[in-house]
Amino acid sequence: MEQLVECIPNFSEGRRPAVIEAIAAVVVRTPGVRLLGVQSDTSHNRCVLTFVGSPEAVKGAALAATRRAVALIDMNQHHGEHPRVGAVDVIPFVPLAGVRMEDCVAIARALGREIWTELRVPVFFYAEAATQPERQRLATIRKGEYEGLPTKLADPAWVPDVGNPSPHPTAGVTVVGARQPLIAYNVNLITEDVEIARKVARAVRASSGGLEHVQAIGVRNARGSAQVSVNLLDFTKTPLARVFEFIQREATQYGVEIADSEIVGLVPLAAIADVARSALRLAGFGREQILEARLMDLDEP
Amino acid sequence: MEQLVECIPNFSEGRRPAVIEAIAAVVVRTPGVRLLGVQSDTSHNRCVLTFVGSPEAVKGAALAATRRAVALIDMNQHHGEHPRVGAVDVIPFVPLAGVRMEDCVAIARALGREIWTELRVPVFFYAEAATQPERQRLATIRKGEYEGLPTKLADPAWVPDVGNPSPHPTAGVTVVGARQPLIAYNVNLITEDVEIARKVARAVRASSGGLEHVQAIGVRNARGSAQVSVNLLDFTKTPLARVFEFIQREATQYGVEIADSEIVGLVPLAAIADVARSALRLAGFGREQILEARLMDLDEP
Repeated sequence: MEQLVECIPNFSEGRRPAVIEAIAAVVVRTPGVRLLGVQSDTSHNRCVLTFVGSPEAVKGAALAATRRAVALIDMNQHHGEHPRVGAVDVIPFVPLAGVRMEDCVAIARALGREIWTELRVPVFFYAEAATQPERQRLATIRKGEYEGLPTKLADPAWVPDVGNPSPHPTAGVTVVGARQPLIAYNVNLITEDVEIARKVARAVRASSGGLEHVQAIGVRNARGSAQVSVNLLDFTKTPLARVFEFIQREATQYGVEIADSEIVGLVPLAAIADVARSALRLAGFGREQILEARLMDLDEP
Repeated sequence: MEQLVECIPNFSEGRRPAVIEAIAAVVVRTPGVRLLGVQSDTSHNRCVLTFVGSPEAVKGAALAATRRAVALIDMNQHHGEHPRVGAVDVIPFVPLAGVRMEDCVAIARALGREIWTELRVPVFFYAEAATQPERQRLATIRKGEYEGLPTKLADPAWVPDVGNPSPHPTAGVTVVGARQPLIAYNVNLITEDVEIARKVARAVRASSGGLEHVQAIGVRNARGSAQVSVNLLDFTKTPLARVFEFIQREATQYGVEIADSEIVGLVPLAAIADVARSALRLAGFGREQILEARLMDLDEP
């Protein structure tokens, strides 16, 4: 079976198309890597690339993209709705086919060392690649954001996993890790009151007593409306439809309705099939009933 | 581009596994054809095969399956909830890739002539292959069912498109045609009163003033409950979620809820993505955001 790793790096640039294109271009030029998507958000002022390939090719593309982003992005000029700690904010690797999670952890660790050695950007390892329990959650590593890094890194508890305990002068730090597929999902509310989005986010996220496998923050979207920005860490256990319904119910308590929602980047077919199953109360429905999925399975050698 | 035609023949046998397997086996043995699914329903007493391949290979598999079914099924012994006119009730061809609708019409017409010449089963052409407007709708051709065929075929208006105007003594007639992808969709109600399913079916189907592109009948399912059995002829214009909601609303008028629903056979990915889009109020969501769809597109030569 072909070895296939997915990499979904997040860069702190969502407003200058030339910079986003320049970063994407180095990925496109890397042999053995296929760029599946580029998604940027002006309000968050960040962009997400999605690419797949063999472990070595994907690691090479991630390093090349990091090199380019560090050269083009100055975090001292960066403002955006979304928390961030570096020009290359986070680089997750996801096992898709023919590789195990521990292979992705090895890729993350190797890339982190290369980023420090070549670019002098300190690196934290997170999720499955974390070296200690307090570093598993991205939100904990990001706490204090870019501006708080000098103080945070001076704390012995927050010495980077690779590199000196002081941030890169323009690129901050980078968080590298391995994880299962995650769904980045934003729910836009019909209100400009971001405080309501924050309250709903607190209700829905696991860390404050909400749904397991859910991370959420309240932010302002590009239209100026309140948005609940969600990371769904395991859609097989906490389905997308349940998150939507939970947010809808919570928002109603403040007299607020959902305007619409959006999936950032790519989503596994199984998550979408789950939503359909739930909405139509489908009995015994699986991906094997989806024509394209069947054709794809049969095309494999 | 590879030429890919889908064929979804419906056979009047849903209770004898050996017969269903024998019919499926001849499809599996046909070179160039891939069998994607076999679905049978004991209450409807019919089964549906789904297979794909080149135009010639698919036509050959359909003829071989028809030959086997005509040998094994005696319509004089057949009872079931679903209307039918023959052992091989209907054979639709669907253009999937690299072929036009008119190619599928040509396949249907050629197969119809072969079925009559070799097996002496009279054939009607329907949908895009129909020779006259009154023969476009399957329900019109099926009216009177197997038992009514001697009388119907004696009517000059109902002379078969190919073959003599009297049914095959055990196989009745076969309806062959070409059409766009169709979704066969059953909605099960929490009631044993089939009359309510019939009323809901009348409300939802286009022919009695309901939703465009929807055919529906009320039947009894294998659990003994009332079922609205739907064919959705164009899910891009009348989405699956709208059909579900319409049926839910209608059923509520009789104090009846939906137990669950089921998709029979295969469903295009776009239809499932549509359901998710509707349920989550997704803005700007398309199949290009589904990981597997992106991987598949990139795998194409």
